[in-house]
Amino acid sequence: MPATKSEASHKRLLARDRRQQLEDAALSCIARGGIRAFTVDQVAAEAGVSRGLIAHHFGSIEGLLVAVYSRMFHQWREIMAHPRPDRLPIEALIDALFGDDLFGRQALTIWLTLWGEIATNPLLGAEHRAQYAGYRDSIMAALTATAKANGRQIDVDPLATGFICLVDGLGVQRCIEPALLSAEDARTACRVYLEPHLGPLAV
Amino acid sequence: MPATKSEASHKRLLARDRRQQLEDAALSCIARGGIRAFTVDQVAAEAGVSRGLIAHHFGSIEGLLVAVYSRMFHQWREIMAHPRPDRLPIEALIDALFGDDLFGRQALTIWLTLWGEIATNPLLGAEHRAQYAGYRDSIMAALTATAKANGRQIDVDPLATGFICLVDGLGVQRCIEPALLSAEDARTACRVYLEPHLGPLAV
Repeated sequence: MPATKSEASHKRLLARDRRQQLEDAALSCIARGGIRAFTVDQVAAEAGVSRGLIAHHFGSIEGLLVAVYSRMFHQWREIMAHPRPDRLPIEALIDALFGDDLFGRQALTIWLTLWGEIATNPLLGAEHRAQYAGYRDSIMAALTATAKANGRQIDVDPLATGFICLVDGLGVQRCIEPALLSAEDARTACRVYLEPHLGPLAV
Repeated sequence: MPATKSEASHKRLLARDRRQQLEDAALSCIARGGIRAFTVDQVAAEAGVSRGLIAHHFGSIEGLLVAVYSRMFHQWREIMAHPRPDRLPIEALIDALFGDDLFGRQALTIWLTLWGEIATNPLLGAEHRAQYAGYRDSIMAALTATAKANGRQIDVDPLATGFICLVDGLGVQRCIEPALLSAEDARTACRVYLEPHLGPLAV
């Protein structure tokens, strides 16, 4: 007897929940112990499920890593999807980038760990290229819109490259030695970089 | 019979060579496979020596990691110790930072790997703080001297913070996806950041 529509829908929901549970467990393992804690044994134990479920839902442990990387960009996509009308686009973006969630030790440890894996993991490299293109487009759009609002002319491509790398580097410093770089220091660094090109920013 | 002076000196030389050989092997392992390839077994095999020699010369595998981190700053210290009279201080520094050695995939993979370990390794954290203080002082001195040479007033502290993070972030991007960021792109990003504050730079 074929599954009814509601049974199939229930099964899909369960599969989605299970994937999310495994992604959560993977994120906890990586935040705690870096890539050495990202093993089938440790992730399955953290999720409280059998080892076989990882391969069942993600093909392999590498597939789970790709899913986790995509998930890390989710928060970013949410921010870009809901622009704040009361701020310049780049201001809203800086607010979000250096807020407690994205600039917290746990999130930054996960980013740093995943970056360290990209060079030696082709699946993760492909996911990075896909996500990075969207991220860069959003940054370029925010810079262009801010310049236009302030009546400035900018060469957006090199300005975006530097801004993306500055944000990454601020995350590295914050992750390595939180006491040496506050969120306010990070916002100031962005202002020092951007204001000569974009005019005054309220960040 | 006590060792003669020349025997003692010979023994010290051998110890130094052996330490360097083990550091070289550690660097090769990390460049090839990240932190998961940095094990007593793999480093000893790479160096072609017995496993016990690592503990003998470095106390532990963690001690070897600290020695390797200190070694990574060596090239930097050399550059700062021999300023080029034909360039502004910050120009010479940018030249070196984005040259083939320091901006190569191998060196950047090692940096990224070591950064990922600092948060969870107190010994490495202490070494980082010691080395970072000297690195930051050099950057601040180069920025201050360049501003003075160009007759500019700068607020050196936030400018240095942003520059250090920009350089780190450029290294991350280059390491993750070399095709998306050339050494010339990196120099341009530095110019976009610094020239509004320091005046024209020939980099």
